[in-house]
Amino acid sequence: MPSLFLSRCLPGALLALCAAACGIAPAHADPVTVASVESPGKVLRVALELDGGQPSYRVERLGEPVVGRSRLGFQLRDGRLDRDLAVLAQETRSVDDTWEQPWGERRFIRNHYNELVVHLGERGGARRRLDVVFRVYDDGLGFRYRFPEQPGLREAIIDDELTEFDIVPESTAWWIPAGEPIHYEYLYRRTPLDEVPLAHTPITLRSHDGLHVSIHEAALVDYAGMWLRRIDGQRLRAQLSPAAEGWKVRRTLPFDTPWRTLQISDHAGGLVESSLILNLNEPNKLGDVSWVKPAKYLGVWWSMHLNQETWATGPKHAATTRNTQRYIDFAAAHGFRGVLVEGWNPGWDGDWVGNGNGFDFTRPTPDFDIEALSAYGARKGVHLLGHHETGCAIDHYEDQLGAALDLYARLGVDAVKTGYVCDDGQVERRNPAGGPPLREWHDGQFMAGHHLKVVEEAAARHIAVNAHEPIKDTGLRRSYPNWMSREGARGMEYNAWGQPPNPPEHEVNLVFTRLLAGPMDYTPGIVSLVGRNGQKIPSTLARQLALYVTLYSPLQMAADLPEHYEQHRDAFRFIEDVAVDWDDTRVLDGEVGDYVTIARKDRHSRDWFLGSITDEHGRVLPVSLSFLEPGVRYRAEIYRDGDGADFRTNPFAFVRETREVGSGDTLELKLGPGGGEAVRFTPL
Amino acid sequence: MPSLFLSRCLPGALLALCAAACGIAPAHADPVTVASVESPGKVLRVALELDGGQPSYRVERLGEPVVGRSRLGFQLRDGRLDRDLAVLAQETRSVDDTWEQPWGERRFIRNHYNELVVHLGERGGARRRLDVVFRVYDDGLGFRYRFPEQPGLREAIIDDELTEFDIVPESTAWWIPAGEPIHYEYLYRRTPLDEVPLAHTPITLRSHDGLHVSIHEAALVDYAGMWLRRIDGQRLRAQLSPAAEGWKVRRTLPFDTPWRTLQISDHAGGLVESSLILNLNEPNKLGDVSWVKPAKYLGVWWSMHLNQETWATGPKHAATTRNTQRYIDFAAAHGFRGVLVEGWNPGWDGDWVGNGNGFDFTRPTPDFDIEALSAYGARKGVHLLGHHETGCAIDHYEDQLGAALDLYARLGVDAVKTGYVCDDGQVERRNPAGGPPLREWHDGQFMAGHHLKVVEEAAARHIAVNAHEPIKDTGLRRSYPNWMSREGARGMEYNAWGQPPNPPEHEVNLVFTRLLAGPMDYTPGIVSLVGRNGQKIPSTLARQLALYVTLYSPLQMAADLPEHYEQHRDAFRFIEDVAVDWDDTRVLDGEVGDYVTIARKDRHSRDWFLGSITDEHGRVLPVSLSFLEPGVRYRAEIYRDGDGADFRTNPFAFVRETREVGSGDTLELKLGPGGGEAVRFTPL
Repeated sequence: MPSLFLSRCLPGALLALCAAACGIAPAHADPVTVASVESPGKVLRVALELDGGQPSYRVERLGEPVVGRSRLGFQLRDGRLDRDLAVLAQETRSVDDTWEQPWGERRFIRNHYNELVVHLGERGGARRRLDVVFRVYDDGLGFRYRFPEQPGLREAIIDDELTEFDIVPESTAWWIPAGEPIHYEYLYRRTPLDEVPLAHTPITLRSHDGLHVSIHEAALVDYAGMWLRRIDGQRLRAQLSPAAEGWKVRRTLPFDTPWRTLQISDHAGGLVESSLILNLNEPNKLGDVSWVKPAKYLGVWWSMHLNQETWATGPKHAATTRNTQRYIDFAAAHGFRGVLVEGWNPGWDGDWVGNGNGFDFTRPTPDFDIEALSAYGARKGVHLLGHHETGCAIDHYEDQLGAALDLYARLGVDAVKTGYVCDDGQVERRNPAGGPPLREWHDGQFMAGHHLKVVEEAAARHIAVNAHEPIKDTGLRRSYPNWMSREGARGMEYNAWGQPPNPPEHEVNLVFTRLLAGPMDYTPGIVSLVGRNGQKIPSTLARQLALYVTLYSPLQMAADLPEHYEQHRDAFRFIEDVAVDWDDTRVLDGEVGDYVTIARKDRHSRDWFLGSITDEHGRVLPVSLSFLEPGVRYRAEIYRDGDGADFRTNPFAFVRETREVGSGDTLELKLGPGGGEAVRFTPL
Repeated sequence: MPSLFLSRCLPGALLALCAAACGIAPAHADPVTVASVESPGKVLRVALELDGGQPSYRVERLGEPVVGRSRLGFQLRDGRLDRDLAVLAQETRSVDDTWEQPWGERRFIRNHYNELVVHLGERGGARRRLDVVFRVYDDGLGFRYRFPEQPGLREAIIDDELTEFDIVPESTAWWIPAGEPIHYEYLYRRTPLDEVPLAHTPITLRSHDGLHVSIHEAALVDYAGMWLRRIDGQRLRAQLSPAAEGWKVRRTLPFDTPWRTLQISDHAGGLVESSLILNLNEPNKLGDVSWVKPAKYLGVWWSMHLNQETWATGPKHAATTRNTQRYIDFAAAHGFRGVLVEGWNPGWDGDWVGNGNGFDFTRPTPDFDIEALSAYGARKGVHLLGHHETGCAIDHYEDQLGAALDLYARLGVDAVKTGYVCDDGQVERRNPAGGPPLREWHDGQFMAGHHLKVVEEAAARHIAVNAHEPIKDTGLRRSYPNWMSREGARGMEYNAWGQPPNPPEHEVNLVFTRLLAGPMDYTPGIVSLVGRNGQKIPSTLARQLALYVTLYSPLQMAADLPEHYEQHRDAFRFIEDVAVDWDDTRVLDGEVGDYVTIARKDRHSRDWFLGSITDEHGRVLPVSLSFLEPGVRYRAEIYRDGDGADFRTNPFAFVRETREVGSGDTLELKLGPGGGEAVRFTPL
């Protein structure tokens, strides 16, 4: 047990009676610490304060403030719930357990925290109650609100959540704008924190003295996603994604909000290695999930982004039986489990963007023999990957969802990529009150519910989900391990047609921002390095391989065309060999926006894989191979930038070479500007 | 051989004839690259250009500019030597050898570079000649000018060296001011590079994208030290420390200038691990130097800084026979080789600062029986460390130098601490032309010569030198291994009486600035953590121990009073145990001004030692122990900050504990604000 200077007041049933005994705050102006809790290793300390009945919290790390006094509470439709509060009771507990991921960046995750629950109650008026739960780890913390069952409040209509984050160390921020039309698909901006207007989470901060902080949330279930608006200085306030009806969240009590999270580390890599978000989610709700298969896949996809083929039917239709067969053959020949086919179903021929009511998810276009292709794939050990582009017509999709998933289940399609491409960043739903359809944000309470519905329906049929244009990841893969991957950031397709394409720093930024939330289906591996109309992709060849290790996803695409892989057999070999499910993950080195080097151990062999990518600057990065098993010699297959490699002038300078190494060795990575390096280590 | 696209023109004797053949630059405005050289691993590339006869150089790293076009040349008394130049010839060679340090941070040093020598000559006028020599390593480069023997120039009076460093990446700089009175003893300033006025070297730069550069010089012999003045933007120009006579340097030809050096790394630690400065110095000139003994020492010293005792004679005189005997006893009991005694000789009783003509270096004060003490120490295996405070009266000191060193040699005093405390940062010398004495900077050509004279005279008597208020280090310890250590920065004594004392970031800054030049006698180990009049020292207890590993010196003082060590036996044990001479050094982690973790292997055992220090912020730093021998189990004796340790409020929170570890383990360091951690690893 941690040495917490807290007293348990009274058991739950007597909470209301307790107010008189321990809940009266002294009648002076300064806030009073009413409860506090330290992390197990005494690194972090959180204090809950009351200032004349108004609750706030503070976070210290090793004795220094990280989050200054920051408000807690709500603006409810029936009045503010952040005033005249007193402590009814408080409880603490310590937890130290270890759980196993069915798939992931590491097999075992330690969950080691101290918890403080503070029961607050209004001293007058409706005497409403609100609990705050803190879980404090050495590498971060989460806190959530609990609306307990209570006579005075049956339903909460939340107009605003008042949670604040007043960051003390002067910091630089990496962030993307919230409340904008292109749902998360922006280049990350690097600005002083005090210049951020309204941002999505995760937002990543680095102080001038090297303290790294990521603010995010965990377990976003039946609630609105949290945006962060800067109020003044470095003070951010939660701004919940609004619902079409005007409120932010509407819930029947009792319920818990998502966890508000702070990951805190002295190294950029510490944020990536943290398991805070997963730990704060509920354990697996699906039972045996051995049917969830981490895998690499090919796709009838890049050719459409190149404008060589089309989603729409007609002479350039990509999703034909014959073309798909070609992909299946290539997948089988090279050991890929899946083939994604987009444009396989009716609905693509008109202007479907933001207008998906024409999609039929239960039958293919006439030139796509899904029955035959599934059978053909099955004989070769290749599974079709399903595709459900909704065009943001949510009810239309939900109406067909059961039948659509039944079709896939019958055909052995055990993973589906969903899509939510809108024309203004908002989806469309039927108006339950009648009248014109309602428009909802991708990350409001409605879509939080929709995504989980799809995941649950898919799970019932042993199908995994890979959502594109999704709601942000908050670690729900722990509870729903069939929610394998998603997009939710500017992906590889921007390199086909984006203005500008993704600059090299973007993929480095992703590791330290978007990917802190969870896996991303970035769709790497464009070895041809060219997009639409000859647009050059800002990458060296070796870098495309390194992305498989640096950008984690349990579903990892080899996104280029088979004919392009045939032209780059040397490089393609790494894509064939690289694992997708891991026993362990180590961030060996890295700085936000500059570069990152990650090593991961294959879950199904003794192989290790290393990936390193840089921004627009070349780097020389000595890397200790201490992650390898001591005493074992390994063959290192090195795929690196050749001399003079440069994403602008010489992207195909590339070397594949092998060396014998051990855990005591140091490997000197030399990355060209926009370059990368990928290594496979196999025990000899 | 590297693939250099250079041609050797003609051998030396025919240089003059060669001008017509290969030296005529085309008659257009743009500069022309006339020669270039790459580092062995093709990381760095240096180009020499001529622009209408005016020479400049550029440095690229992995294809990107680090130093933009920067001028080369001189303002000589008899006219500028930077115009109308043509290439007479050029030569290249590759060197890859390894040499052994008699003592140092590591035993073996690899010297692997490509060299380019360009012979330039004026096309008209006096047809003076000037060579530029570049040595390019993967982790940096050096270049120097060579004034070859030539008929038109017998002696060079250098009024200005015109060398420029136009740093391309927008950078932050850590620097101390040059041309100021307190010779190097300043807190390091952190400013944008484009706000630096006039700075000493080494100056350390970090770009926004993480490129680290240190500008310094190597082998400063018979020349003036280089200061750097910012001309505009990020362009720095050499400004040589001026001589009293008005010129900067006066030399008879032929001669070489010191090397102008650039260390370049993607990590702060890469600067520290670089051996560039040593590699550019000449090999050992002294032959067998087994008489040079890395050692720890105590001193009759801190008590004077505390004002408890005095350098001057009288009732509080520190350097008495009885007091020194006490130190010798303590040194013998705890395994220290040396005892420094300051104030042992006549001259301290008046105002000696900047006025050292009263010092007598050949006899002790009457209350200090140096003969008896030497003999007493010898019986106990303890050597007196000599002390020569000059009070900046250089000729006065030189007059006695031989006799003073003879005395020490006879008494077995095999190391001497010299001192140059002036009242305005300038020393005094006799005017060779008669008249009032001349005032010289600590780092002008005169003092460069003086220091080397002392070192050579000492070497002839097998005595080592530890210079305080010295000229800056430029790696001459390679050529003169008896020049063991020096000060040249704000040392521990500022924690006794400095306003302000050294803030915690200062010692971190030292590692990445001052110590890039060479060892520093910082005099750590003040376990009492209190200075004069109760001034609190900005440090935790564990940090004082960590300084022995982080701040390298082959002569390492245990600077506190014996009675204070008796009060902190637990901590003192590390000071007793820590090594001072190393087989290997690894910077495990660190950022300029923030924190640093270094591991070093003892040269005389299989032990490793680790030290980590932070600035005013606490840190949690996971450290891989991969530097340990694989397969060997070690006992780790850990000296760390206790829970809640903080240099402001709780500096004595301290824990000593032992664990068993191996090379596959990770140690999580937890440093309090202003804290540190020290670890000894001993094979089981």
